[in-house]
Amino acid sequence: MSLILLLKNKKEVVGITIVEGNVNFDQQVDTMLWALEFLGVDIPVYPGSKRPLVKSFKTVEEVHGKGGIGDEIVKPKMLKAKSKHAVDAIIELSERYAGELEFLAISPLTNLALAYLKYPKIVENIKHVYIMGGTIYGRGNITPIAEYNFWVDPDAAKIVLHAGFNITIVPWEVAVINAIDENTWNYINKMNTKLSNFYVKIYSHYRDFSMKRQRMRGNPHPDVITTAIAIDKSIIKKANMEYVDIETNEGLTRGAVIIDYTDAGHIISNNKPNAEVVYEIDYEKFTNLLLDTLRD
Amino acid sequence: MSLILLLKNKKEVVGITIVEGNVNFDQQVDTMLWALEFLGVDIPVYPGSKRPLVKSFKTVEEVHGKGGIGDEIVKPKMLKAKSKHAVDAIIELSERYAGELEFLAISPLTNLALAYLKYPKIVENIKHVYIMGGTIYGRGNITPIAEYNFWVDPDAAKIVLHAGFNITIVPWEVAVINAIDENTWNYINKMNTKLSNFYVKIYSHYRDFSMKRQRMRGNPHPDVITTAIAIDKSIIKKANMEYVDIETNEGLTRGAVIIDYTDAGHIISNNKPNAEVVYEIDYEKFTNLLLDTLRD
Amino acid sequence: MSLILLLKNKKEVVGITIVEGNVNFDQQVDTMLWALEFLGVDIPVYPGSKRPLVKSFKTVEEVHGKGGIGDEIVKPKMLKAKSKHAVDAIIELSERYAGELEFLAISPLTNLALAYLKYPKIVENIKHVYIMGGTIYGRGNITPIAEYNFWVDPDAAKIVLHAGFNITIVPWEVAVINAIDENTWNYINKMNTKLSNFYVKIYSHYRDFSMKRQRMRGNPHPDVITTAIAIDKSIIKKANMEYVDIETNEGLTRGAVIIDYTDAGHIISNNKPNAEVVYEIDYEKFTNLLLDTLRD
Amino acid sequence: MSLILLLKNKKEVVGITIVEGNVNFDQQVDTMLWALEFLGVDIPVYPGSKRPLVKSFKTVEEVHGKGGIGDEIVKPKMLKAKSKHAVDAIIELSERYAGELEFLAISPLTNLALAYLKYPKIVENIKHVYIMGGTIYGRGNITPIAEYNFWVDPDAAKIVLHAGFNITIVPWEVAVINAIDENTWNYINKMNTKLSNFYVKIYSHYRDFSMKRQRMRGNPHPDVITTAIAIDKSIIKKANMEYVDIETNEGLTRGAVIIDYTDAGHIISNNKPNAEVVYEIDYEKFTNLLLDTLRD
Repeated sequence: MSLILLLKNKKEVVGITIVEGNVNFDQQVDTMLWALEFLGVDIPVYPGSKRPLVKSFKTVEEVHGKGGIGDEIVKPKMLKAKSKHAVDAIIELSERYAGELEFLAISPLTNLALAYLKYPKIVENIKHVYIMGGTIYGRGNITPIAEYNFWVDPDAAKIVLHAGFNITIVPWEVAVINAIDENTWNYINKMNTKLSNFYVKIYSHYRDFSMKRQRMRGNPHPDVITTAIAIDKSIIKKANMEYVDIETNEGLTRGAVIIDYTDAGHIISNNKPNAEVVYEIDYEKFTNLLLDTLRD
Repeated sequence: MSLILLLKNKKEVVGITIVEGNVNFDQQVDTMLWALEFLGVDIPVYPGSKRPLVKSFKTVEEVHGKGGIGDEIVKPKMLKAKSKHAVDAIIELSERYAGELEFLAISPLTNLALAYLKYPKIVENIKHVYIMGGTIYGRGNITPIAEYNFWVDPDAAKIVLHAGFNITIVPWEVAVINAIDENTWNYINKMNTKLSNFYVKIYSHYRDFSMKRQRMRGNPHPDVITTAIAIDKSIIKKANMEYVDIETNEGLTRGAVIIDYTDAGHIISNNKPNAEVVYEIDYEKFTNLLLDTLRD
Repeated sequence: MSLILLLKNKKEVVGITIVEGNVNFDQQVDTMLWALEFLGVDIPVYPGSKRPLVKSFKTVEEVHGKGGIGDEIVKPKMLKAKSKHAVDAIIELSERYAGELEFLAISPLTNLALAYLKYPKIVENIKHVYIMGGTIYGRGNITPIAEYNFWVDPDAAKIVLHAGFNITIVPWEVAVINAIDENTWNYINKMNTKLSNFYVKIYSHYRDFSMKRQRMRGNPHPDVITTAIAIDKSIIKKANMEYVDIETNEGLTRGAVIIDYTDAGHIISNNKPNAEVVYEIDYEKFTNLLLDTLRD
Repeated sequence: MSLILLLKNKKEVVGITIVEGNVNFDQQVDTMLWALEFLGVDIPVYPGSKRPLVKSFKTVEEVHGKGGIGDEIVKPKMLKAKSKHAVDAIIELSERYAGELEFLAISPLTNLALAYLKYPKIVENIKHVYIMGGTIYGRGNITPIAEYNFWVDPDAAKIVLHAGFNITIVPWEVAVINAIDENTWNYINKMNTKLSNFYVKIYSHYRDFSMKRQRMRGNPHPDVITTAIAIDKSIIKKANMEYVDIETNEGLTRGAVIIDYTDAGHIISNNKPNAEVVYEIDYEKFTNLLLDTLRD
């Protein structure tokens, strides 16, 4: 869906990198290629790291379905993934589009961290990094305190956060608060376009899980919100530059986000802000962008 | 101030235990005895543990002043602390007032944890434990993520939380949001009673620090709010029973509170709620209680 | 067996404290009382803490048998444990025998740590603390790196090590190297005294486990060696004063011993030695003491 | 010196990769190029990662001198490092020499770990990995418990250890026990060959530090021993296949080696051996190889 949003909004997508995450890695590659065929576009897909840097992790098929977009196992007919590794693709694209390239990270940050470790100059070349990950109020989704993307590879998140990128973070709670409500869902249901039907098909499983198992008001869209912000920053209603750090030790707090609100602390620390953290978004503006996209 | 609130509201205070905390231990004992003389009451004061169970810690005279209530070093003229150790006092009082005793914990939980370790039956004997400590949104005051009382002795906090007590927790952020505003402070300033003058005297240092160094709207009253709730539970506007845990490992997240909001999580855990966590209070009701107390 | 050694060697035993450990707590109390009846002596037994300070732990009945000295569940006929808590007993005995009392710790250090936290002056009053615990070469027995007593309550061990006591530590590997060999075991088997038969009875289970499951040369006697050293320090062949610390964080290295061999390090640290660590003992001297004891 | 050993013993060296470590990264590259010029050989040098995967670290110029081989800052006259990144060089060489390539790791394991993360198939292609790193008895050199190479990048060490390589580890203590003694040092001093003079020049600083600051019997050669073993495995006198793990959490035990000696444990674990650990070497054989090498 993030991809559709980007394409419909005339964003040039120069490459897609795949990383370990919600479901089986090879299925993620297949699903992406299948989606490109469905959309009738040919964007290079670069498979990357199949695992976090150091930690062990788990996929969450119970949330996203076996195919990642529901339980259907989709396969591409024609398209193939590139043989170039995602890490090298990131480095090369960041050189080719130096100063212009934006990186949209809606999965764990392993590929980006590896690219940075290999070629630190990508920090200068990449204009902006949009990250879906972490929490602002300590309400996680994979452990009580940690959000999935940061929990899967907290080491990669730490590397990226301290590398010096221009970063905007969309935390999990923002997605929960702005989950697709009854009105919006019903509206999409009645649109009856190719894309709206596709939307309903791929999110029904997730919406169901979110509402019944997690008592949310609807299906949360952390990735789509992050993409929407990358397209139109005015969707953000409230954001601050913060010093953000990550707990990488194993234990109860693996992957927990630490934001240094020095204004509320006994101690005035010397931590410099390293990321823009999004606290509130304009739900109307966000869903309008989504609905416009589904109108075809 | 917590003590004044209790006495003015006809609460019987059967004992006061002293634990390591904001300022020098012996000074804390002296300040408490001096306060009792000032108030003209004689309540037994039991010195307890001078240090956390395991961790090292630091006092925060820069926040509370050298005397704990400003920089003046106060000393009692007559009153002396009891020789009985706080741990034994807690155990004996819990036996004597079994089923009735309430424990108000506005400092680190070392004494209560030690009493429990020595005599687990206090869990049945103590009717309720009111705790000032921890966070709900991950905004700490001694580290970016941890509140002082839980940070000082996270091991004691963990012991107490899992012991089976009936617990109400007032977290730090509730105190920040409900810091004494300009109106209330000015009102108290003009009351010109013995107690209102005392209030202004002991909180000027702290208010100043909180507003200038921490950009709060006024002086936060975590301990007084906790006491007020112990006196009148209707001050609570929103509270939930939660599963609360503490990070005891040293590192970035020492003392961090983990609340298991399973409703917002991918995983439905089996953690049973172990504490009532206060999310919102009625500021008017709270300050009315405070103002009534200062009216003499 | 430690007790028998002490009594036979005319050591005055002024009290026995029980702590959580190898088998069920109440069984440990019963077994000790039963043993006192068997030996025909009446020494006060003080039950203490039934759990470590902070961590969770497990008993190891598969090693020591359900009764702690094999699988037989023994019960005392007459003797009863004292109602005074072990922590208070330690404090009182350390006052009564100030400067003379020696503390023999062959179980987790919870009681001693709690006594110290309540009454730090025991450090001056207790002449010497003999501790069975920890490792010197990182070869544990409950995890690959940690020895049982220190693993069960690493927090208590840390408190005791840094309290300032005069400490002698007998680590696990010393017991493994000096496990009772075939010759000694056979010799004891043929002695046919009341005590030698008792010895064979209570250690057959443990010897069997140690040799078959752990491929040792016999049954290791960490506690008896520690006791023997408390009786006769000349059993030590090699020992050094070292700076000893403990990992208290949960994880792979919980309970690991850190010894600061600055002579072998890049960094000359400022850690001061806090314990005498035993590296080698005289096996002949040790077993002679044991055999003499069993001769009745 | 490791390089000289390899060349003199007719080992084909197909590439040298540089990683963060003892001294400034760029100086390490320069020193290596300078050494190649000194030896009159041209082997490709591939600069790699300048930092550990996740952790912060420090160089130890006080041990090895500013130039890495004493305080002299050496610079190459002609030779230049390759522009290909070490990670890609490892991957390509492992493909080109699949089944034959041996990897000699005498520095932190960052490059090898990154190569594995990018291209896991190197595990099959690389015949053997010889690693200088870690401890067997918990006697570290950068912290009391941790050896420098594993401490610098414990995450990389963990990745490599669990990747499935054929691994031989030479731990720090083996180097300490087999430090170059007075006899050998004097002998080398009198050889008066180009290489023996070079040896004396580059190790005088280190020998001095090791003996005066660390009270060793001479200069320890962890890297040269590892290299010697890679040339001639019969130098090993005692080695076992073990399950080896690493503590990656920050704290007292960062970088500590955990070896699962199940035979000495209460618990029979299911950990499978993943590395050959060297416990003893033949000092004569090792120094003979070294002396033969210096004879020109």
